[in-house]
Amino acid sequence: MKWSEIYLKTLKEVPSGAHISSHILLLRSGLISMSSQGIYVYNTLFLRSLQKLSNLIKKELEKNQAREILMPMVQSKEIWEESGRWNKFEGLLLKMESRTGAKLCLGPTHEELIINFVKPGLSSWRDMPLNLYQIQTKYRDEIRPRFGLMRAREFLMKDAYSFDTCFETAFQSYQKMFQAYQNIFNQLEVDYVVVKADSGAIGGNHSEEFHILAKAGEDELLVSQDMSANIEICPRQDAKKTQSSTPELKKMEKFATPHIKTIDQLAHFLSIESKELIKILFFINQDQNQASLKNKAFAVLCLGDDEVSLFKVKKELCLKEQPILADKEAVYKITGVEPGSCGPHKLKIEVPIYLDNYLKGKRNFITGANEEGFHFKNVNIDRDFKVKAFGDFCFARERDLSPQGFSFKKYRGIEVGHLFYLGDEYSKKMGLSYLDKKGKKQFVKMGCYGLGVTRTLQAIIEQKHDDKGILWPFCIAPFAVHICLIDGEENSRISKAQEKLISILDKQSLDYFIDNRKERPGVKFKDADLIGLPLRVNLGLRDLENNQIEIFVRKTGEKHKVNLSDLESNFFLTKFLN
Amino acid sequence: MKWSEIYLKTLKEVPSGAHISSHILLLRSGLISMSSQGIYVYNTLFLRSLQKLSNLIKKELEKNQAREILMPMVQSKEIWEESGRWNKFEGLLLKMESRTGAKLCLGPTHEELIINFVKPGLSSWRDMPLNLYQIQTKYRDEIRPRFGLMRAREFLMKDAYSFDTCFETAFQSYQKMFQAYQNIFNQLEVDYVVVKADSGAIGGNHSEEFHILAKAGEDELLVSQDMSANIEICPRQDAKKTQSSTPELKKMEKFATPHIKTIDQLAHFLSIESKELIKILFFINQDQNQASLKNKAFAVLCLGDDEVSLFKVKKELCLKEQPILADKEAVYKITGVEPGSCGPHKLKIEVPIYLDNYLKGKRNFITGANEEGFHFKNVNIDRDFKVKAFGDFCFARERDLSPQGFSFKKYRGIEVGHLFYLGDEYSKKMGLSYLDKKGKKQFVKMGCYGLGVTRTLQAIIEQKHDDKGILWPFCIAPFAVHICLIDGEENSRISKAQEKLISILDKQSLDYFIDNRKERPGVKFKDADLIGLPLRVNLGLRDLENNQIEIFVRKTGEKHKVNLSDLESNFFLTKFLN
Repeated sequence: MKWSEIYLKTLKEVPSGAHISSHILLLRSGLISMSSQGIYVYNTLFLRSLQKLSNLIKKELEKNQAREILMPMVQSKEIWEESGRWNKFEGLLLKMESRTGAKLCLGPTHEELIINFVKPGLSSWRDMPLNLYQIQTKYRDEIRPRFGLMRAREFLMKDAYSFDTCFETAFQSYQKMFQAYQNIFNQLEVDYVVVKADSGAIGGNHSEEFHILAKAGEDELLVSQDMSANIEICPRQDAKKTQSSTPELKKMEKFATPHIKTIDQLAHFLSIESKELIKILFFINQDQNQASLKNKAFAVLCLGDDEVSLFKVKKELCLKEQPILADKEAVYKITGVEPGSCGPHKLKIEVPIYLDNYLKGKRNFITGANEEGFHFKNVNIDRDFKVKAFGDFCFARERDLSPQGFSFKKYRGIEVGHLFYLGDEYSKKMGLSYLDKKGKKQFVKMGCYGLGVTRTLQAIIEQKHDDKGILWPFCIAPFAVHICLIDGEENSRISKAQEKLISILDKQSLDYFIDNRKERPGVKFKDADLIGLPLRVNLGLRDLENNQIEIFVRKTGEKHKVNLSDLESNFFLTKFLN
Repeated sequence: MKWSEIYLKTLKEVPSGAHISSHILLLRSGLISMSSQGIYVYNTLFLRSLQKLSNLIKKELEKNQAREILMPMVQSKEIWEESGRWNKFEGLLLKMESRTGAKLCLGPTHEELIINFVKPGLSSWRDMPLNLYQIQTKYRDEIRPRFGLMRAREFLMKDAYSFDTCFETAFQSYQKMFQAYQNIFNQLEVDYVVVKADSGAIGGNHSEEFHILAKAGEDELLVSQDMSANIEICPRQDAKKTQSSTPELKKMEKFATPHIKTIDQLAHFLSIESKELIKILFFINQDQNQASLKNKAFAVLCLGDDEVSLFKVKKELCLKEQPILADKEAVYKITGVEPGSCGPHKLKIEVPIYLDNYLKGKRNFITGANEEGFHFKNVNIDRDFKVKAFGDFCFARERDLSPQGFSFKKYRGIEVGHLFYLGDEYSKKMGLSYLDKKGKKQFVKMGCYGLGVTRTLQAIIEQKHDDKGILWPFCIAPFAVHICLIDGEENSRISKAQEKLISILDKQSLDYFIDNRKERPGVKFKDADLIGLPLRVNLGLRDLENNQIEIFVRKTGEKHKVNLSDLESNFFLTKFLN
């Protein structure tokens, strides 16, 4: 393919609104172009990469008996009401109305639709296992789309759904997909990790994420030899080392803390570290949204330098929805003061108080006095306030210990794959049942498996680039070879050499892109570096005088002068691609 | 691929809402499944056909230097306002609003978006010719989606857009696409015709349609040796034979026609044929929608048995929009009576009167008297009413003559491809210009080229089926071979024969689908006929006793007993596929 045949314009400047390398490079190389906020056009080169990646994904899935179908992007309200997600998905679901008055939405995911599709025929245990997937355009109405294709509104996704009769076979289906994902990411030659994850709006009770590691990743991951998890849910072992060595309960004392509003200010005021202080946070249980404050609010106490994870609170308290932080007004009603002077002793409204595990065995807390500008010293569990329960409520941190005592290392990752074991959550809601061998009605066990296709491509670029441009891995590069014509095609020596080169590339099954523009070599080289195809062949008259061409390896910067005749006989370009 | 690995349920009954064969067969064979009105899921088999057809299309387009890109389905209001189509497309454009308040629509076509995409870089004559295409999901908010994929809301389309510097090269681009389309439809082995067409909401001034012939087609086509056209715009030669032989102008006479409201009633009342009568119709020029009735209304007179084509009126009068028929109230204001007794003589509001060419030379018309229950005899042009102009306003008919005097034959067709020469209509509106060799600013000349991918598949089925099911052409069949296991896979003789058969098919590059269900042979044969793969191989113990398998050719019904060893050595299954 020739440059003159496609639409491809590179940019010198960093486009406005692009802040991370991969987004900048995708725009500067002209591979994608924004058409509206969070919505992009994919040019010919980028589409080739998308298709190569899609084919690689398909091949691995098909090996595992997953079979392709294609579902529509427009879905009806009815099925989303059946699953109970029409309102739960809220903002991300772009809703619309047809001129006949039908309520519709653009599919951000397809659990409802596929259940509706297979329901008429999935009636016996003989019809399973079944695993169907599609590679299809999804839409999520992000408020702030950013980072290009990493948080786009419209994007391409591979989503698969497995249907099984029981937990055992469903788990086999899950494991097959897990294996397929590993095969896919191994072939892509990227650094990635798999972590335990929260199952979010999809639901279900077992979930893992595949992350491509990159500093610009939106997710924080804690990785150790025996366990890795998204920081949102990563469990924390009891911190025995930090247990208090002061067992004696001292007398509670009030002291003035004028104008102090935050833990850091208090630590500074007392000349101690914030981790020696205790923090209290009030939350509203969203499951009980209609209840009185007494029945829907609760407090969580933790160390001053810890952060409460809403995901963990939800999980520990077995809530359906994530709780939200109580607003000033609610805090005032519960404690009688505004946030900054609150504590667990003598609340105006007695709400349940939960303690983070790290407070186990701790004594003589410093907490707010529920009186503007005052705190207590020596507040103690049981004596001064009642504890509903202890739990693992806070984010784990780098160097915390894993279950087997290894130290966590923190990475940032870009979530590119997500596997969920859904069990019968959806099949119960939407009535997807079958008759077992005894003729008894049972609910189908499901799994669902996402893989962001456009997002994976960008994540790879985020990991694989240098200051000159992209470093495409061979297997998904738009083309393997970038042919730079140093002199014009109209020169018969150039055109003959090009013809010969092309016939050799065809024989070696390498695809190629020819820069036939009327531009200076320097401009062409810069653009070639930016676009980042694995190999570049420079075709110029000076080298051809010696029957040579120049081969440039993008990743390493190596240059080789090679005789065209050598290339033809026994010199395989692919040797540069490893 | 095995039946047990996919979701495929055939239906015995004709599904409700399906009225034409292809729609019924697509649903009964389980190839597609309705998810909401006009929106379908494509199962694994149908998707394979879609992909085969898409690849065939891509191959022919790429040969002609058209290059693939991928544009988004969601488009912004701004670009549709620039082109002036946000309101013009009206109902078909499904509009919606994001939660940030952005006005969006689902793309029914992509002229606006692609112009917006190429505008920054298409700046010089060197950047052209350029031809970009995509195969992408489109959405049209049809009020009454029907006939399955033929008038669906969501569908798959190939749309291409060419960009050129001048009419000559633009016409070359158009011709290349025309050739590519011919190559595509020739390979599909379908009966099709190419006709001149109206350019509809797309605009532009040269347009041709590719139609697959089928009785259930929505379009009427007039086909002759020298010219074929959609009946909407098919030009009509002057009908010299029908010219009146009564040159003498007779005196106008009024006569009573009580209770007569229609041409047919009048013909019956006068015991003459309706083609001897003259019909008057009043229209409103939509371009002048805000003007007074005098300035926006006009009348068209034609023979009593002719039908006025709004497409032709629009074209003849050089209107931007199709006119609409005046309502009763407007007719009353213009003529003083309700439709049924109207005529051109003495209008209350003098609106322009146009005459169909077929009235040329005609004398002594019978027309309404603009008085309830009365008509005139012997109304004559110039003497009794003024003619603004003659024109070709009416639908041509079967047996009318083509420009070179051939007789038109009428067909029904399904429009599957549409080519438009757009000129600079869009580039002017959206400011798509370039600098020519002299550095002068010029507008880009465009063409656009649609091909309905899902629609083509259904149209082929509409043409190629029998009462048992589909007759897939080999090149786009989901699989070439349907293997029916008469006895179960668990029998080692069957599984060995199957293994051997598969290795032979692989060598002959034929793909296959294995019916491994536990069903009676009769059920399997019926389903195989319904799904309609070109070849069926029956694999049963009885034949295997003689080392034989049975080959069944779907299209012809031929059966052959073949030795497995023959098949391996020198017997090519493909010979049955022609």
